[in-house]
Amino acid sequence: MKKVVLAYSGGLDTSFCVVYLTRELGLEVHTVIVNSGGFSEEELTAIEKRAYELGSTKHEVIDVTQRFYQDCLRYLIFGNVLKNDTYPLSVSAERMFQSLALAEYAREHKADYIAHGSTGAGNDQVRFDVAFSVISPNTEIITPIRDLKLSRQAEIDFLNQHGFEMSWEKAKYSINKGIWGTSVGGVETLTSHQALPESAYPTQLSATEPTSIEITFEKGEPVALNGETMNPVALIQALNELAGAYAIGRDTHVGDTILGIKGRVGFEAPAPLILLKAHHLLEKHTSSRWQLLHKDYVANWYGTLLHEAQYLDPVMRDFEAFLTSSQERVSGKVFVTLKPYQFELQGIESQYDMMRSKVATYGEENDAWDGRDAKGFIKIFSNQLRIHSSFNDEN
Amino acid sequence: MKKVVLAYSGGLDTSFCVVYLTRELGLEVHTVIVNSGGFSEEELTAIEKRAYELGSTKHEVIDVTQRFYQDCLRYLIFGNVLKNDTYPLSVSAERMFQSLALAEYAREHKADYIAHGSTGAGNDQVRFDVAFSVISPNTEIITPIRDLKLSRQAEIDFLNQHGFEMSWEKAKYSINKGIWGTSVGGVETLTSHQALPESAYPTQLSATEPTSIEITFEKGEPVALNGETMNPVALIQALNELAGAYAIGRDTHVGDTILGIKGRVGFEAPAPLILLKAHHLLEKHTSSRWQLLHKDYVANWYGTLLHEAQYLDPVMRDFEAFLTSSQERVSGKVFVTLKPYQFELQGIESQYDMMRSKVATYGEENDAWDGRDAKGFIKIFSNQLRIHSSFNDEN
Amino acid sequence: MKKVVLAYSGGLDTSFCVVYLTRELGLEVHTVIVNSGGFSEEELTAIEKRAYELGSTKHEVIDVTQRFYQDCLRYLIFGNVLKNDTYPLSVSAERMFQSLALAEYAREHKADYIAHGSTGAGNDQVRFDVAFSVISPNTEIITPIRDLKLSRQAEIDFLNQHGFEMSWEKAKYSINKGIWGTSVGGVETLTSHQALPESAYPTQLSATEPTSIEITFEKGEPVALNGETMNPVALIQALNELAGAYAIGRDTHVGDTILGIKGRVGFEAPAPLILLKAHHLLEKHTSSRWQLLHKDYVANWYGTLLHEAQYLDPVMRDFEAFLTSSQERVSGKVFVTLKPYQFELQGIESQYDMMRSKVATYGEENDAWDGRDAKGFIKIFSNQLRIHSSFNDEN
Amino acid sequence: MKKVVLAYSGGLDTSFCVVYLTRELGLEVHTVIVNSGGFSEEELTAIEKRAYELGSTKHEVIDVTQRFYQDCLRYLIFGNVLKNDTYPLSVSAERMFQSLALAEYAREHKADYIAHGSTGAGNDQVRFDVAFSVISPNTEIITPIRDLKLSRQAEIDFLNQHGFEMSWEKAKYSINKGIWGTSVGGVETLTSHQALPESAYPTQLSATEPTSIEITFEKGEPVALNGETMNPVALIQALNELAGAYAIGRDTHVGDTILGIKGRVGFEAPAPLILLKAHHLLEKHTSSRWQLLHKDYVANWYGTLLHEAQYLDPVMRDFEAFLTSSQERVSGKVFVTLKPYQFELQGIESQYDMMRSKVATYGEENDAWDGRDAKGFIKIFSNQLRIHSSFNDEN
Repeated sequence: MKKVVLAYSGGLDTSFCVVYLTRELGLEVHTVIVNSGGFSEEELTAIEKRAYELGSTKHEVIDVTQRFYQDCLRYLIFGNVLKNDTYPLSVSAERMFQSLALAEYAREHKADYIAHGSTGAGNDQVRFDVAFSVISPNTEIITPIRDLKLSRQAEIDFLNQHGFEMSWEKAKYSINKGIWGTSVGGVETLTSHQALPESAYPTQLSATEPTSIEITFEKGEPVALNGETMNPVALIQALNELAGAYAIGRDTHVGDTILGIKGRVGFEAPAPLILLKAHHLLEKHTSSRWQLLHKDYVANWYGTLLHEAQYLDPVMRDFEAFLTSSQERVSGKVFVTLKPYQFELQGIESQYDMMRSKVATYGEENDAWDGRDAKGFIKIFSNQLRIHSSFNDEN
Repeated sequence: MKKVVLAYSGGLDTSFCVVYLTRELGLEVHTVIVNSGGFSEEELTAIEKRAYELGSTKHEVIDVTQRFYQDCLRYLIFGNVLKNDTYPLSVSAERMFQSLALAEYAREHKADYIAHGSTGAGNDQVRFDVAFSVISPNTEIITPIRDLKLSRQAEIDFLNQHGFEMSWEKAKYSINKGIWGTSVGGVETLTSHQALPESAYPTQLSATEPTSIEITFEKGEPVALNGETMNPVALIQALNELAGAYAIGRDTHVGDTILGIKGRVGFEAPAPLILLKAHHLLEKHTSSRWQLLHKDYVANWYGTLLHEAQYLDPVMRDFEAFLTSSQERVSGKVFVTLKPYQFELQGIESQYDMMRSKVATYGEENDAWDGRDAKGFIKIFSNQLRIHSSFNDEN
Repeated sequence: MKKVVLAYSGGLDTSFCVVYLTRELGLEVHTVIVNSGGFSEEELTAIEKRAYELGSTKHEVIDVTQRFYQDCLRYLIFGNVLKNDTYPLSVSAERMFQSLALAEYAREHKADYIAHGSTGAGNDQVRFDVAFSVISPNTEIITPIRDLKLSRQAEIDFLNQHGFEMSWEKAKYSINKGIWGTSVGGVETLTSHQALPESAYPTQLSATEPTSIEITFEKGEPVALNGETMNPVALIQALNELAGAYAIGRDTHVGDTILGIKGRVGFEAPAPLILLKAHHLLEKHTSSRWQLLHKDYVANWYGTLLHEAQYLDPVMRDFEAFLTSSQERVSGKVFVTLKPYQFELQGIESQYDMMRSKVATYGEENDAWDGRDAKGFIKIFSNQLRIHSSFNDEN
Repeated sequence: MKKVVLAYSGGLDTSFCVVYLTRELGLEVHTVIVNSGGFSEEELTAIEKRAYELGSTKHEVIDVTQRFYQDCLRYLIFGNVLKNDTYPLSVSAERMFQSLALAEYAREHKADYIAHGSTGAGNDQVRFDVAFSVISPNTEIITPIRDLKLSRQAEIDFLNQHGFEMSWEKAKYSINKGIWGTSVGGVETLTSHQALPESAYPTQLSATEPTSIEITFEKGEPVALNGETMNPVALIQALNELAGAYAIGRDTHVGDTILGIKGRVGFEAPAPLILLKAHHLLEKHTSSRWQLLHKDYVANWYGTLLHEAQYLDPVMRDFEAFLTSSQERVSGKVFVTLKPYQFELQGIESQYDMMRSKVATYGEENDAWDGRDAKGFIKIFSNQLRIHSSFNDEN
């Protein structure tokens, strides 16, 4: 019997796929779920149970959280990457790493087929197909949902016909939970003018008193929270917990899908927003003017290409080399105050703080240069403008 | 008697200059103050009175507010320009336009000299010197403060000796008020780790109930507030008033001065922050992916060069041409909710909203393409990655 | 009877299409050939004759040469655009403008279908399909060659069966002749290591004595050759003639197709190469450092997106606005010497030559600044490096 | 007696400095010449002899050629860096590395002063001053030529007065010879319209028969010439010899000096031009579209900042990390034909040649996709253009 590896999430679409692939196509189905930090133990156990109920031959949970941080989130922090100045690429990044892990699993296990449950409308199918065809080029891709275009009810009927009478209530908001942010879609995000209501967000406001926290970075990576050294993944999770209580990091993103249409989605991403802004502040103190300028270019493209399923392009490795090099001195502490719905950056402390150099200090008398030097500087600094303007009639 | 045009602000440094230029250098002093939207009538009257008291032969107020909007602020809005993702270039932009107006005045009035009261430490001297030497290349520049490096007390003593016994209390915070934001410097901004206290900001929180407002843009320019058509300058002022009551738009900026050192300054800029973010949201709905990407490049450089006194470089006209062209369809309404210390973008409405096209709509079944098209798209979309990866040993 | 507009070139593929569309699909075929400067009167007459022989109901020649220059080539000159520093985008640009003219013709004539003869392998199909679907979205596209994938012989057999016994010898080299360059493909360009033989180029060396020529630019556009004022299109054609005799402007380009694979093609483009390099030299004398730097970015993207069939993206209009603005002072004469297989830029003459300013002149004593100014300049210029380096252990 | 380290070249200006520093300032002069590949043994010996004659206490030759290649030229090759598409940065790069070596020497030898013989007019003073003040911040800089502004004759008179009656004939052309190119200045380069005469170039045409050569690159570095493995420095020197005989690589560069004025200089750089173009061709075959695009940005800036004495800015290390990463697969052979005054790239051979992939091959039938895939690709590829254009009145 031929073997298919199916990206299984426990939802209606991929549950339909399990049954369709076994019963209609006669395949041996290996269900695989890739956890990149968004699933709890309970959720994983429930999903496994369902997979076997539906006829999976083998169910696997692959945890890629550490790798996801190491090979991706780290660089998003180095680059202060917010797509269109808004979105931390929560789902875009996560789905890519889930796809890669699935493709590698299929290759290692010499699967005949690899399947996913995405429709033909969105970005996810692209991330899956690209990863599958690049990493495991000889494994054929099957996409029942995209090919059959069944309605929700038709899928439920099919499952019922095969004896699976589960409850498939449609949630009011579709949620994708991940370590780097949770996306929220609903009736409002299908409009252009409505924001999500407060109640749509999975994490609700529960803290009201402002708290001050301290995040320590070492060469650009977050390594301690309030003085306690942590693995960055644990730190992100702890900070999500802490700042989520303040309902920090909510926003709505409008962006270009890979297929060329505009899409809109709400999200909550407390830790990502705080880490990105805190890291950026530390960089402003410790990086050169030229680094700050060119990092913007590199990071903007790194985020754009990651979003557009180009993670495997070799230019991404080149960008990562640039970003890693740029973090040499991005070490120190950042002080942040958390308040309901917002946070404030108080300041930083770093041994490489260029505001604290012995050479010259802003706003103070200094010996680095005098007024005569400044005159000479500005005279020569304006040479080209003066030359250019000398051709104007009026001069 | 030779004539000097002096940039006069009413403060101690430039007041010293009036007396020094008349009494020590024997010059006829024309004091000029350029209002780019930051001075009230009362302030201007008081400054004029003081200028004449100190010995100014002629005092002029030049209002450049409309020109400042037309030739600069407009482009900052088009580009969503926030230096280092933080600072709307409040003082950087304003000082440039004050310098230009002064230089033109000096040229038109055939002044023998032109003077400013900046020290040799900061950015302002660069903006003044560059504008003066490019626009009025044959007028010699005099800079008593930069040259003499007197202490505050020595300046007061000098004024007293010449019979000017005014009160020169040093304010706890140095404030520069402008239409595009007010900067605040104090003991905290000289450190790297302390934020300004609430009380340091000139505008204090006075509103607590959230309000919803509506801003209308026409080809990128803000033209109506809550449905009422306004001149953009009036709109910015009204919005500063409205949102200032919510203490919106406060932050601390750490950046590179033109002289190569890092500086830190607090600011409040309610209208700029809201307009930039509202405008950006409208662009996300109405601009193409390529426009959004390349606008980032152009706008980042436009802001950087403006900050660094390069406004007169012809490349700035080229950037402005790009930015103007990019606004062709950036028309519509943006809905914003104001709350204490923060604002939320609710959404937009535009005839050019690409989410509302008849061709294809996000999240809905559509006829623009089907699953088979998507397969073909992704197959070809991943061609290069597949080719590149085909040389890997493992495949 | 339903009407189809067919892009007709006179070659085997599109001749097959005429017969296939009339006989197999029962359509009324309107053959259209768009001349963007590459066809002679004789060629056009021969093509028309053949079209009618094969059954075309109506044959049209649309001349877009002036528009091609005005809306495209002009900007390629402004941007000194050579794809990957090599290729003037000869075919890429031309095919786009042919596609646009066809699409507009189909829309105006309310055609039911629009057809082209490209295969599914290359760039041309993309340019056709994109232009057709954007400009004339309600006209269905038919692509017999792409769909049927017939061999050359099968197409000939089909024509013979329908009584068209023409001679269809396959040329050793496939040639696409245009005003902005002629592409040459052959057995060598299918390898990575062989150059085209001398004999493959349509234009052969016929001049041996060096000649000096003078090209006059006005705001970036070539307006006179050897002092004789000409329409830019005529100038390009005259210069192609003149420099073609020296076999100037030959090279082989290796580039990325829109479909993600690498392609290789030879070309000869005497006028484009000379104009681009001459124009660039004039810019080096008349443009600011910042203009030269940022023009590289803009022009590189303009060329890339034009190559990739994105001419209709609004960002292209924004780039054009930038480029047009940048040409304000790019006026003057460029002196060039033509020699067999090469040309040398001798120098320029311009009223805006920044080497000739009264402010300061390179290599001469000048009054614009002195040694003391230079010291001050460099001291402050190196501030940030000194601050950054002050944290090194060794200092 | 206080000690000064002097950058000594053997010319009139620095010879004047030796005597001025010893006799007028009473210093112990250590003359240092840094060889970055431009000096022969004979020249170095003659310079040493003269240094001691004039009163140097100690003369040192520091050879930085290997380091110059390793820390700089390598990256210029990786980036295909030609300033303004013309100039390989011959002098710009070399002078920086000479300055660095001098600064390190002064620091290690605890010199009280460090001196150079540049005027206040050009780029070299900036490179010297920046390197000296950053690397050896506590050593004071002395610049007699810049400060005293003596005429050539006055310097000769001064030397004569101190008993040094050497011959100081002024050469018709000023030459700066280096491994990465030789610059040539003369009366013609002070104009904008005249090219240097053939006779001005130090290397004269001596070969006429075309030769084919083969250059092997390994991860972007040139490692073999005509199959013979060589140290890259030796390879550059051998290629300069070989191609110099064909008078290849001559041109005139017009560029912006660091001081804001335009300068013009002739140069001959046979090996650099061939290596840069050969390397670029290899990259076109082995690098992804995104790598080629973004390398242009990085390389343009790397060259610009190197030219402008910013080599020590940390962003240069970040760019180098990017460039190094980008060379992972830039390995293979490039075939070049040398002819009088020109060279032709024939083609390449590489195990990573993306034209030779098994996935898909240009111009051939392939299984990677079919016409139906292409249709789907283009349909979705044009989604955004279709959406954007759907708001036009005419559609």
